[in-house]
Amino acid sequence: MTIEELCSIRISKPDPGIRDEAKKRWDAIAKPIDGLGRMEEIICRIASARGELCPDISKKALVIMCADNGVVREGVSQTDQSVTGQVAHLMGERKSSVGIMIRGYGADIFTIDVGINSDEKYPGVIDRKVRKGTADIALGPAMTERECLKAIEAGIGTVRDCSEKGYGLIAAGEMGIGNTTTGTALLCALTGMDPALLTGPGAGLPESGLKRKEQVIRNALELHLREIGENGTLSPQGENTAEGFDSPQSVFECLRRLGGLDIAGMTGVFIGGAMYRIPVVIDGLICAAAALTAQRIVNGCREYMIASHTGREKGTDVALDLLQLSPVICADLSLGEGTGAVMLFPLLDMAMALYAEGSSFSETGIRKYERYQG
Amino acid sequence: MTIEELCSIRISKPDPGIRDEAKKRWDAIAKPIDGLGRMEEIICRIASARGELCPDISKKALVIMCADNGVVREGVSQTDQSVTGQVAHLMGERKSSVGIMIRGYGADIFTIDVGINSDEKYPGVIDRKVRKGTADIALGPAMTERECLKAIEAGIGTVRDCSEKGYGLIAAGEMGIGNTTTGTALLCALTGMDPALLTGPGAGLPESGLKRKEQVIRNALELHLREIGENGTLSPQGENTAEGFDSPQSVFECLRRLGGLDIAGMTGVFIGGAMYRIPVVIDGLICAAAALTAQRIVNGCREYMIASHTGREKGTDVALDLLQLSPVICADLSLGEGTGAVMLFPLLDMAMALYAEGSSFSETGIRKYERYQG
Repeated sequence: MTIEELCSIRISKPDPGIRDEAKKRWDAIAKPIDGLGRMEEIICRIASARGELCPDISKKALVIMCADNGVVREGVSQTDQSVTGQVAHLMGERKSSVGIMIRGYGADIFTIDVGINSDEKYPGVIDRKVRKGTADIALGPAMTERECLKAIEAGIGTVRDCSEKGYGLIAAGEMGIGNTTTGTALLCALTGMDPALLTGPGAGLPESGLKRKEQVIRNALELHLREIGENGTLSPQGENTAEGFDSPQSVFECLRRLGGLDIAGMTGVFIGGAMYRIPVVIDGLICAAAALTAQRIVNGCREYMIASHTGREKGTDVALDLLQLSPVICADLSLGEGTGAVMLFPLLDMAMALYAEGSSFSETGIRKYERYQG
Repeated sequence: MTIEELCSIRISKPDPGIRDEAKKRWDAIAKPIDGLGRMEEIICRIASARGELCPDISKKALVIMCADNGVVREGVSQTDQSVTGQVAHLMGERKSSVGIMIRGYGADIFTIDVGINSDEKYPGVIDRKVRKGTADIALGPAMTERECLKAIEAGIGTVRDCSEKGYGLIAAGEMGIGNTTTGTALLCALTGMDPALLTGPGAGLPESGLKRKEQVIRNALELHLREIGENGTLSPQGENTAEGFDSPQSVFECLRRLGGLDIAGMTGVFIGGAMYRIPVVIDGLICAAAALTAQRIVNGCREYMIASHTGREKGTDVALDLLQLSPVICADLSLGEGTGAVMLFPLLDMAMALYAEGSSFSETGIRKYERYQG
């Protein structure tokens, strides 16, 4: 795939007729109007995305993109790159955090090595390695155009496989030491916001480390933004007036320069979700940065995205707001691996059960509530 | 039980040592510090409440208190009292909204008829009827002291039964047409807040109905508050300065005059949860009003409560704030029946799985994150 081919992908709109029908179905169920609140909206969104009034979302996948980030050399994380491989190893055995959390739940996990800095083969992990970790974004572009495209293709290809296997819903997740730095840098470039507004503690940094991380992001932005050339300015500290980058080509360039292979892989997952009409649940900051990147490279992707949680990192809400998506879990999560996204799964199951099997006013003989508001 | 006996119930504090140990256990799991955010806090809370570092919460119950409210005669709801019985009938067959939502999930439902306005026996519903619906709070007290105590005892007794059967966690829920009116009136009395600040649309009211509901609540408060005598004033509209009632006896009197049998039953569930050390998950407005009532009648109950969601009715957050509890689901839910509370169950299962079985830094060989913040 070339950049031109990527930027010319066209996404078909979800079916608005099914969306309206789905809302009517909710209103016919014997319960207060809008009783399940935003869960009702999400189910309507899934139905119109899938193009079916009652889509089957029982088969669900979690796709985790794992990659290393050269920027770790700048001291932006408590740990070094070796942890990415160690956790990927646990993931392959379903012993990482998310594997244990959903052990009692029926979702399948696809762990993708899109760029771990190691020659090791991890059992249970799918090898789509593009290169062994990115370059340090504080010193140069994270990857070449070709590498970035390959990582995006790995994401699209994974969703195509999921589509062929009958998955109706996907959660996106990541593992890669240093990726709150790359995710935040990318988000600063896409929004024009200053790193001071968006830099968070990641997996756990002291105040001094946080300052250092912010400075590393600022240096990387100064290095790359003038190269991209369009709107290449950051807003003054404490304000958010600049627009950031939004043409598909310049957003791709931001991703390749400031992002990582994990983020590029997830960008591909969101694009693939829209292409194959499988809604993709967004996890935290890094995932949300990838989602915004996908929407800006391929317009219309956002219609196939579902927000899960607000997250502890400040950038999460900024990205979700720009995507006009509202999360339903607000628990200061910051674990990664797609944990927040899969926590939405059982909530969707409960909502879908009521939507699909709920007793209607007509069959119960209960007088229907009239819709006066909303 | 007498009022004196009720007000003299003493609650033992959760174990602070276990709470600290539980937090240490979280920090030893190979994941970012505080990675599961408030879910980690909730698990620590459950552990210290149960008095065990790794409590078994696999067996969970939903207790639904059903009762009718005389205030429905004032035109505060779209539907009439017959709907309470109709939904209780569905509940007994597990065909009401919550029954369908958790069909694929392992929790047991105990539906309690604590005051449905009907002589009907509902299969699958436990008969603890105190009287056939309350009196109209706009005209007089909802119930007598004796009736209020009996409803509270029904709640405590239900938790005692759950304790004997080995349940480790309870969700509280309700069904009773008109109970957002009684719940809001009670909350106004407990907080000193004006009904204009707290009245919401319930199951769905047009603007005119909302005004009427607010006026009915205002009338009820004027009728009863001077009778209670202590702090019997409401804050001026738009402000929140008055203190509201908080002595155990006056709070009991607010409950009996302005509340309902469903709310009194749930108040008993929260008191019982603290007595038998079973954490109780709070659902929406009506449940939160009962929780605040329980805490003010029997100090210390709040330590055994868990917030689930923010809810659409404005009073929910007010009550949760006063209880110093933070919800983790923010989806504008307003269905009732304990639906929002049971939606927390699978999230707790996932968090508990990681807490109980998560790979530790020491066994994985991954270097532990240091705690610098929080």
